[in-house]
Amino acid sequence: MLGNFSYHNPTALYFGENALDYLNEELPKFGKTVQLIYGGGSIKKNGIYDSILEILEKNGKTVVEDGGVMPNPTVEKLYEGVRIARENKVDFLLAVGGGSCCDYAKAVSVSVNCNDDPWDKYYIRFEEPECEILPVGCVLTMAGTGSEMNGGAVITNHEQKLKIGHVFGDNVMPKFAILNPKFTMSLPKKQMTAGIYDIFNHICEQYFSGEDDNTSDYLSEALMKSVIKSSLIAVENPEDYEARSNIMWCATWALNTLISRGKDTDWMVHMLGQAAGAYTDATHGLTLAAVSLPYYKHIMPYGIHKFARFAKEVWGVETKGKTENEIANEGLERMADWMKKIGVAVSLSDLGATKDMIEGIADATIILDGGYKVLNRDEVVEILKQSL
Amino acid sequence: MLGNFSYHNPTALYFGENALDYLNEELPKFGKTVQLIYGGGSIKKNGIYDSILEILEKNGKTVVEDGGVMPNPTVEKLYEGVRIARENKVDFLLAVGGGSCCDYAKAVSVSVNCNDDPWDKYYIRFEEPECEILPVGCVLTMAGTGSEMNGGAVITNHEQKLKIGHVFGDNVMPKFAILNPKFTMSLPKKQMTAGIYDIFNHICEQYFSGEDDNTSDYLSEALMKSVIKSSLIAVENPEDYEARSNIMWCATWALNTLISRGKDTDWMVHMLGQAAGAYTDATHGLTLAAVSLPYYKHIMPYGIHKFARFAKEVWGVETKGKTENEIANEGLERMADWMKKIGVAVSLSDLGATKDMIEGIADATIILDGGYKVLNRDEVVEILKQSL
Repeated sequence: MLGNFSYHNPTALYFGENALDYLNEELPKFGKTVQLIYGGGSIKKNGIYDSILEILEKNGKTVVEDGGVMPNPTVEKLYEGVRIARENKVDFLLAVGGGSCCDYAKAVSVSVNCNDDPWDKYYIRFEEPECEILPVGCVLTMAGTGSEMNGGAVITNHEQKLKIGHVFGDNVMPKFAILNPKFTMSLPKKQMTAGIYDIFNHICEQYFSGEDDNTSDYLSEALMKSVIKSSLIAVENPEDYEARSNIMWCATWALNTLISRGKDTDWMVHMLGQAAGAYTDATHGLTLAAVSLPYYKHIMPYGIHKFARFAKEVWGVETKGKTENEIANEGLERMADWMKKIGVAVSLSDLGATKDMIEGIADATIILDGGYKVLNRDEVVEILKQSL
Repeated sequence: MLGNFSYHNPTALYFGENALDYLNEELPKFGKTVQLIYGGGSIKKNGIYDSILEILEKNGKTVVEDGGVMPNPTVEKLYEGVRIARENKVDFLLAVGGGSCCDYAKAVSVSVNCNDDPWDKYYIRFEEPECEILPVGCVLTMAGTGSEMNGGAVITNHEQKLKIGHVFGDNVMPKFAILNPKFTMSLPKKQMTAGIYDIFNHICEQYFSGEDDNTSDYLSEALMKSVIKSSLIAVENPEDYEARSNIMWCATWALNTLISRGKDTDWMVHMLGQAAGAYTDATHGLTLAAVSLPYYKHIMPYGIHKFARFAKEVWGVETKGKTENEIANEGLERMADWMKKIGVAVSLSDLGATKDMIEGIADATIILDGGYKVLNRDEVVEILKQSL
């Protein structure tokens, strides 16, 4: 725990099968006009939409519809959301869906009262909001992104072929999030497993940095072990409430700032995956899955102790009589096996990328430091080729 | 993660060697008159008092002194603190010290505007505050109780021979806490290790319950492993910043409600230890240390799977060819060895308890359920005898 840091995460979480009841406690804290944000409309089929509308009406709210948020929310959709909020003088943004809806709601929240173009201000110039920020609440229907308890908001600009995440401060975090594991059971298995890999990778990005023996590393290992254990149960039986609930809870704690305290973080898998995502529009978790093993194999020699620790602590690799390199390699092999078992062993080709996109994806990849090796452009290209 | 639960912990944490600087950011949020709460005056010797006074003055605050908070804050001291706050129309309570000061500040905060007798209302009748609650901030100088990020406040009534903790809601949690690991280095080693055992036991009390495979169990194991690792370094070299900082961070997360989410909790070691503490006025962490091994040996057969998991995951006990009972026993032996190594292997006799106190301590022990076995009075007496 070296360095100075702060931790402030005021989001209230309501968890469990009856969690939606707490919407009745939260709604009175906010204004009358609620912008109801959701995705492709699956919540209208599974009854969640009706339940929420009933609660909103009971609480005397005026509902403004804002559906059709796409899996990778676009800058055009952001402009539309801002227009809806302005035209209706919206007081409160209620996102119902997965990370896309929640990210989008946060992006709208900082843009409604902002005079600048939000894409330029927040995603190109990475400035912080100075305007009044609309409060956001979230009813989560997919576990993965952790967006329900953080300030992150990823927006995609197809014209510029950029998919960029801005991590805002605690003033942008949702005021509350409702986490009912049963809501996640309506998802197709493919989306569940993409979400599971997203969770796992969030933890990896914060874990693979530093040489100290940080409490955050132990907490990261704990979350990884819980995700692995529950993912294997959920893949066999997606209706297993216990497994789905542990996955949902891990998702929140994997990316709510806790496990990065006192650590550098890497995030290169996200940079590579998001760049590929801007080209292919593939599911976020799967783009991460496609690039991560080639990336980790590449950086392993630079962080060999940590990769050996990962093998031993997370995967239970037997260490007796083995070199550190053998142990570390075995850890990544076990990780590859697990990815196969849960069905996220994909390549960028599987996701629609082609050889001629490599240079463009490499151009769109933001190179960060914080991990065990700062990549150069040749290395980015090489990792992308290995991921095809 | 079965059942329904909520998580809301709005305390802002500032961590690191420069953490005190953040007092300048927090103080303007609160009123002019600050009740400065501290203990026996060690902060006057080590310079912390002067640094804080300077910051308070710079921020234009009127300071009202409230020193002399004892290790186990008494109900008489609570009445005094309430009187000081009322007479001076205090706006804000700033606790500088360990868990005692912070607990005491919270107890004052819910009592200043309360018409009832606070001992009767909060500690005998366990009612919740309906009055306005004064805001509390905390500058921590000892790691252990976790009081800096929770709603707990333990008060001792010597006349009634009762030491009782009330866990208040998030409205009573400190608004902020300043955690500078260097501040904890001024403590005598004995207090450091008592704090370390307090942390470890907080985790145990939340870990030893339930049969499911809960994410909170994994997080508990992570915190225990980090505490054990850093405690062994800190006992050899109390000036090791890295070890002291990990211990300090673990203390906060061991008792800020995170690792109890979705779980029953036990707390019988605290009930036994606090009852003994009311008789002996011994250091809190040491009373826990004295009763815990006899207690865990007693309940082990009722939670044998969890004790075997504890042995394997926390202590790295080799399991091959051993019965579950042997594994579980070996775990408790390792724990006993660790307690010896860090110097908290004490008995209740070491802490001043005598045989003729046993019945009285047993009478004062509140029997809780939630653990693997609800004790009867005979079992309480037997465990106390084993602890002598």
